[in-house]
Amino acid sequence: MDLGTLIGIVLSFGLVLSAIMTGSSLIIFVSVPSLLIVVGGTIGAGLVNYPMNYIIGVIGVIKNTFFSSLDSPAEIIDRFKDYANRARREGILSLEPLIKEIDDDYMRKGLQLTVDGLEPQTIQEILETEISYLAERHATGADVVSALGTLAPAMGMIGTVIGLVQMLQTMSDPSSIGPAMAVALLTTLYGALIANLILMPMAGKLKARSKEEILLREMIMEGILSISKGENPRIIEEKLNSYLPPKDRIVSE
Amino acid sequence: MDLGTLIGIVLSFGLVLSAIMTGSSLIIFVSVPSLLIVVGGTIGAGLVNYPMNYIIGVIGVIKNTFFSSLDSPAEIIDRFKDYANRARREGILSLEPLIKEIDDDYMRKGLQLTVDGLEPQTIQEILETEISYLAERHATGADVVSALGTLAPAMGMIGTVIGLVQMLQTMSDPSSIGPAMAVALLTTLYGALIANLILMPMAGKLKARSKEEILLREMIMEGILSISKGENPRIIEEKLNSYLPPKDRIVSE
Amino acid sequence: MDLGTLIGIVLSFGLVLSAIMTGSSLIIFVSVPSLLIVVGGTIGAGLVNYPMNYIIGVIGVIKNTFFSSLDSPAEIIDRFKDYANRARREGILSLEPLIKEIDDDYMRKGLQLTVDGLEPQTIQEILETEISYLAERHATGADVVSALGTLAPAMGMIGTVIGLVQMLQTMSDPSSIGPAMAVALLTTLYGALIANLILMPMAGKLKARSKEEILLREMIMEGILSISKGENPRIIEEKLNSYLPPKDRIVSE
Amino acid sequence: MDLGTLIGIVLSFGLVLSAIMTGSSLIIFVSVPSLLIVVGGTIGAGLVNYPMNYIIGVIGVIKNTFFSSLDSPAEIIDRFKDYANRARREGILSLEPLIKEIDDDYMRKGLQLTVDGLEPQTIQEILETEISYLAERHATGADVVSALGTLAPAMGMIGTVIGLVQMLQTMSDPSSIGPAMAVALLTTLYGALIANLILMPMAGKLKARSKEEILLREMIMEGILSISKGENPRIIEEKLNSYLPPKDRIVSE
Amino acid sequence: MDLGTLIGIVLSFGLVLSAIMTGSSLIIFVSVPSLLIVVGGTIGAGLVNYPMNYIIGVIGVIKNTFFSSLDSPAEIIDRFKDYANRARREGILSLEPLIKEIDDDYMRKGLQLTVDGLEPQTIQEILETEISYLAERHATGADVVSALGTLAPAMGMIGTVIGLVQMLQTMSDPSSIGPAMAVALLTTLYGALIANLILMPMAGKLKARSKEEILLREMIMEGILSISKGENPRIIEEKLNSYLPPKDRIVSE
Repeated sequence: MDLGTLIGIVLSFGLVLSAIMTGSSLIIFVSVPSLLIVVGGTIGAGLVNYPMNYIIGVIGVIKNTFFSSLDSPAEIIDRFKDYANRARREGILSLEPLIKEIDDDYMRKGLQLTVDGLEPQTIQEILETEISYLAERHATGADVVSALGTLAPAMGMIGTVIGLVQMLQTMSDPSSIGPAMAVALLTTLYGALIANLILMPMAGKLKARSKEEILLREMIMEGILSISKGENPRIIEEKLNSYLPPKDRIVSE
Repeated sequence: MDLGTLIGIVLSFGLVLSAIMTGSSLIIFVSVPSLLIVVGGTIGAGLVNYPMNYIIGVIGVIKNTFFSSLDSPAEIIDRFKDYANRARREGILSLEPLIKEIDDDYMRKGLQLTVDGLEPQTIQEILETEISYLAERHATGADVVSALGTLAPAMGMIGTVIGLVQMLQTMSDPSSIGPAMAVALLTTLYGALIANLILMPMAGKLKARSKEEILLREMIMEGILSISKGENPRIIEEKLNSYLPPKDRIVSE
Repeated sequence: MDLGTLIGIVLSFGLVLSAIMTGSSLIIFVSVPSLLIVVGGTIGAGLVNYPMNYIIGVIGVIKNTFFSSLDSPAEIIDRFKDYANRARREGILSLEPLIKEIDDDYMRKGLQLTVDGLEPQTIQEILETEISYLAERHATGADVVSALGTLAPAMGMIGTVIGLVQMLQTMSDPSSIGPAMAVALLTTLYGALIANLILMPMAGKLKARSKEEILLREMIMEGILSISKGENPRIIEEKLNSYLPPKDRIVSE
Repeated sequence: MDLGTLIGIVLSFGLVLSAIMTGSSLIIFVSVPSLLIVVGGTIGAGLVNYPMNYIIGVIGVIKNTFFSSLDSPAEIIDRFKDYANRARREGILSLEPLIKEIDDDYMRKGLQLTVDGLEPQTIQEILETEISYLAERHATGADVVSALGTLAPAMGMIGTVIGLVQMLQTMSDPSSIGPAMAVALLTTLYGALIANLILMPMAGKLKARSKEEILLREMIMEGILSISKGENPRIIEEKLNSYLPPKDRIVSE
Repeated sequence: MDLGTLIGIVLSFGLVLSAIMTGSSLIIFVSVPSLLIVVGGTIGAGLVNYPMNYIIGVIGVIKNTFFSSLDSPAEIIDRFKDYANRARREGILSLEPLIKEIDDDYMRKGLQLTVDGLEPQTIQEILETEISYLAERHATGADVVSALGTLAPAMGMIGTVIGLVQMLQTMSDPSSIGPAMAVALLTTLYGALIANLILMPMAGKLKARSKEEILLREMIMEGILSISKGENPRIIEEKLNSYLPPKDRIVSE
């Protein structure tokens, strides 16, 4: 569970709402047609911008910003020290029975290839291809959300221009100018809120998460390659630790 | 057929039109001169920006955003497992008769070079050059559309400034200011609609498509090189699977 | 001759002029001081931005956007097939008499180095350095034009702010506000026209041209290296073809 | 202590305050709700944008822009010349007793690995991984501050639009328009001040600091590798000097 | 002496001044508080953005945009042909007495290393490190100027918003609105002038100069490495010429 996403949205929208309600009633900020043109137009342009399954997939991607479940780096270092010791003492085949207990697909696959006796070079190729296409898929997810976040204010601006044109064409009654222009500005407001409080920050969170996951994958790859090359457990620990900030490092006595 | 492009355009323009018609008649948003200056000026600047055949080619490029026909990755993996098995059992020359049945130019060319006995190194060079120039051509197509999408709002802004200057010069009658300014804003609106609902998203779709096609080509290259090196069919499957998201992978029992 | 540049400028400016003249007389859009501040200020800032000979060179660079004369890729492939066949049959020295007939400096230099018997490695180094510095010079040309295209609207904005300050300081007579502001907006208009219809698209055309020329140079380098390595003419054709879109490829029967 | 950060903030805010107070009383620029919406909204969107511990960590990151303590490059060169001489004369093991006196974790780790007799290749791998992830962590810190600096003006704009809508809806009393709009503009002002005078420049300082620290790390790595390869002390000095601007170089006679 | 910088500033500011003086007296454009807030605020934010010595160093960096003194490429080619001939005829040690006459630190250092008999590989490493850190220092200088050029318009905008708020709060007397707003706009004007006519173009010039200097350094490195490898003088000339545009090349008969 990623509490930050929830707290952040509640906090920022709460402040916006209370800012509105200290100055006027909330009702003058509600306009269903404005919401429709911003949200619908953004989705429409999004469907032109990306294959349809990407846009449908956005719902899942957005859900991801509320949840998260990655192994801790410390756990990974511990595990690899353990594997390396075992492989040194009892031979690499002794890891075979442990493989099926591993939850993580990536680690399981890498160790299986190691136990199967593939060359470290070949294992590295396969694991790196997997990381680079994982990075690609993550980047695509964040890009879609971020593209929608660029389209929303554009739709807001389009809605406001439409409102302005209508107001200017019928400017016979000066007293109606104010409220008409207020309504025209609502699409701009909606576009800005959706983009700056929801979509753009969510794209940011997806990128930050992707970096963390890729770092873990790189640590796992480094560990697997070290085992496959039969390296010293102490060297493995040293290598994996260098991926972490000094304060998170594991020092084995 | 890429339904998304069609649905997206119908959806976003439908919403814009209904937003307009709930507030006023549609007629006040129609201005042929405004449309001419935005569309014509964009094409004119486009002709300065790119060689003429690129701009003429844009029509074909835009048509591409409505259609699409790529092999599925699963099909490609299946096919290469089949080829690899055959090559292992009966020798690489046994692939020769299959080559002429292949639809895809790229795969046919790569396999032909393999059967002809070229070094994997040389095959890789040729296939990579082809991918990198395919990527280049795709990028050019998307860039042209995206450049036009940058020019359209600029033309819209120019049209609006022209209208403002004319209105300000003849501001004798205050009651005419509103409608004159409304008309001046129409070019801004047209520029924003053409850019944000059509051209920019289409450039996005072209880029997304290009990525998919290049991924397929890279899988095909990987498969061909594996065959040409005589690699184990299981390794080939493993390698090709790593290009795909876990849920799309093919697991052969 | 690059007709596109000419047609594009005539088309876009023609549309702007007719848009103006359908609404008012052209004369209210003419302001020599406004033109001076935009053009002169842009040149002045350009002289600070780049060494003086770059800015003087811009005239030649702009002229280049109207003219163009590159060999066709097909011609180059034909020529290299011919050279490769000859080199195979009669030895590489048989190319010596052909070299002095070659117009293109780059191809002549490359072939001369080949005939002189330099290592392919050394030839590649020299030819790649030449391409990379050609790309550098092209990029500089396009960058200067594009930097001027960024300065022009900034000068336009500065001119408009100056006009606004003067208008606001002397706002005693309300009826003079309109025309004064109209004049103030002219520098914005000039800056936008010069940037969006001339300079920016020209920078774009220079980049597109540079890409084409570099592609040709890379094909020539590939061909020369293949000859210097004594490769099979069919392989050379295959390699050079991979630089081209499928429909432009030469298929020798 | 980085005096620049302190002086800079005092200087720029001092000028803004005196500019305000020469024109009016300060009190009309104070609005607690406006401050709340800008600061709170920025933090809220930041919590969506980054994992919560990053946002909490921002406080520490900002504190870093006021303090700084890096070894001088000259000190490092001196030290490595000393180590290299000692290693040459008495063997690499003679460095062992010096290691525990080293403050800097990175240098201590690198020398320990050298004394332990690891291959230069392996030492380089470990030290480079450490540098690249240090760079990554620094970049993340600067990115968070810079993302908040992008959100603040967006929140300011949203607050102003809200104020405008409220003002336009209740435009019955023309004399209240001015003050209402003045208040609406305050969120824009707060957003601009927070972004341009605090957050953006702080992100800049973090990047400049990161570059300096990474340069030092690279010098240390170069020195350690040279010692591990048993290179001549004069060469080491020459190599390390090339990292510095000519005037800061150490010339040993 | 770089006349372009001087001419450019005189030209652009001259045009701005004459544009002002044809429309009003110059005095209404003078506002010391506005100048203070833009210049002082920019320096203040700059001190937060960069270590203090960078900001102090800006004065020297800006001075550099008025002066320039680089060897011509032709001179460098001539010199290396001479060295190469001498080294071929009389051995590489015959260059020793020439070294102390060389003005350029970089060339002197490189040749000294060559005469000292270091491996070409080691020489290349040292010379490349030096180039890459020279490029880094140049980039930092240009970045500081360019960052100040981004801050200046932001300060201008802040000043204008402050002026607007004060004007709107005290809008009792309509006739004072114009002049008050005119004064508010002056900070925007100052920010735009300082950024677009001075700082941004100067950052551009620093980048253009840096490219030229690095190109020369790369030519010198190429020449030194060729001599250290004992290459043929004709090859050296060929290699160095490929760094230059065709028309500047030296053709030795």
